[in-house]
Amino acid sequence: MGRVTVRRPVRKLTPDGQRRRPDALAAEEPLELRVSGKPLAVTMRTPGHDVELAHGFLLSEGVIGSREDIATARYCDSVDDTGRNTYNVLDLALAEGVPEPDTGVERNFYTTSSCGVCGKAALDAVKLRTRFDPSGSPFTVSTTVLAGLPATLRERQRVFAATGGLHAAGLFTPDGRLLAVREDVGRHNAVDKVLGWALLEGLIPLSDCGLLVSGRASFELVQKAAMAGMPMLAAVSAPSSLAVELAEENGMTLVGFLRGESMNLYTGEKRIMEG
Amino acid sequence: MGRVTVRRPVRKLTPDGQRRRPDALAAEEPLELRVSGKPLAVTMRTPGHDVELAHGFLLSEGVIGSREDIATARYCDSVDDTGRNTYNVLDLALAEGVPEPDTGVERNFYTTSSCGVCGKAALDAVKLRTRFDPSGSPFTVSTTVLAGLPATLRERQRVFAATGGLHAAGLFTPDGRLLAVREDVGRHNAVDKVLGWALLEGLIPLSDCGLLVSGRASFELVQKAAMAGMPMLAAVSAPSSLAVELAEENGMTLVGFLRGESMNLYTGEKRIMEG
Repeated sequence: MGRVTVRRPVRKLTPDGQRRRPDALAAEEPLELRVSGKPLAVTMRTPGHDVELAHGFLLSEGVIGSREDIATARYCDSVDDTGRNTYNVLDLALAEGVPEPDTGVERNFYTTSSCGVCGKAALDAVKLRTRFDPSGSPFTVSTTVLAGLPATLRERQRVFAATGGLHAAGLFTPDGRLLAVREDVGRHNAVDKVLGWALLEGLIPLSDCGLLVSGRASFELVQKAAMAGMPMLAAVSAPSSLAVELAEENGMTLVGFLRGESMNLYTGEKRIMEG
Repeated sequence: MGRVTVRRPVRKLTPDGQRRRPDALAAEEPLELRVSGKPLAVTMRTPGHDVELAHGFLLSEGVIGSREDIATARYCDSVDDTGRNTYNVLDLALAEGVPEPDTGVERNFYTTSSCGVCGKAALDAVKLRTRFDPSGSPFTVSTTVLAGLPATLRERQRVFAATGGLHAAGLFTPDGRLLAVREDVGRHNAVDKVLGWALLEGLIPLSDCGLLVSGRASFELVQKAAMAGMPMLAAVSAPSSLAVELAEENGMTLVGFLRGESMNLYTGEKRIMEG
């Protein structure tokens, strides 16, 4: 743990000359997730909060719905060339009665016999059904609170401040508090970490919370929010077409280009109060 | 095709008031890649240049090394709910003698019997060996040429200009020309598209070209450049620790935070000429 940054020498060129000095880089290492000893996925992540990441990943993949669905989580005794534990392999045991995941093969490498519907199949393959419908959530937030969120998030992006190289995700309340903030080289990992934190705190479904992300809003991030029962996603940058479509389909609120008092409302305006 | 942007109504709030108007969003749709009719992967991409994307993907996964390795590429007759072809499923036939890919299962969901080396295995699972060693490339570029690249790229980011929602990748020559530029909601897709373009043009290995990306440099992007035999990756934003490690291991030059005359040189300084 604690390897969120790595120091390396770098030669910096500027209009005023050049110098060589150590630079802090955002750490990126592979994390292998196993369920009952069976490899499920490898994700490139920034080390730290791995147990949260694993819980959030399994939640947003639809494998688990509460912390009780996981019996144990432990690092394997994996070692590198010098014999040190890498802490890069995490094994989770499911609680009794929780079905094993499909090992992902079906979603990524499924087979379909009917080519006539394969376009639909491509989308079906990536689309998951949430067990926590966010559409009925009475969650609302004011534009003033929304306007203040990016600055609040930025203050808590400690590793970004040092490296410029990390995405961030946060969970916000109607009054603008950030319950948890996590950073990662992968934006999906940052989201999995905050969702995993919430799951471990017993807060799923997050029907009275919004998800804030430091970058763009993709299909995948909207889906993760939906899988946690969240009614709102607010992104500092642009959403994609499919992100907007999925948010609409799920009755969620999607805010993009959230930059101070300027913001774009794409879906679910009923949850945004002016003032 | 041609669905690189999608128009949607949006409510824009600014300090000066609000208005509702149509907004251009970066299109995001799933593309299913098949090899000989067998599903290999689904990627969320911006439609357009799909054949290039498929070729670049197979090149950077180590399945093919030249355009002759692909016999045919065609869209399946996949239809959506309204009966229109989605153009979201692409089937490629390999040329005779080219081994079928492992369907990715081994890389993402491989099984290992020895837990003692599983940390190393996690990294081995994502690391590929390139058939085009970039370390001996005599490619060099001046700092003046490098300094001008981001602005040249930005001029050609047509969809980004309209949506603010796309990553871009370009191939640059020692004198600063951009041979090809591609945009995508996924940065790995933008890179696959330019690499696929080069492969279809018979330019692989790209030993006398650099890869320019509009965002951060991750392990994955360095690996894609290496798989195409490219000696240099220049990124507008930060590299990760593993990106720097892999560039060093492959004898490649890695430039980060390329912003006008300011830039950081992480590895392979011998290819950067001052002036």
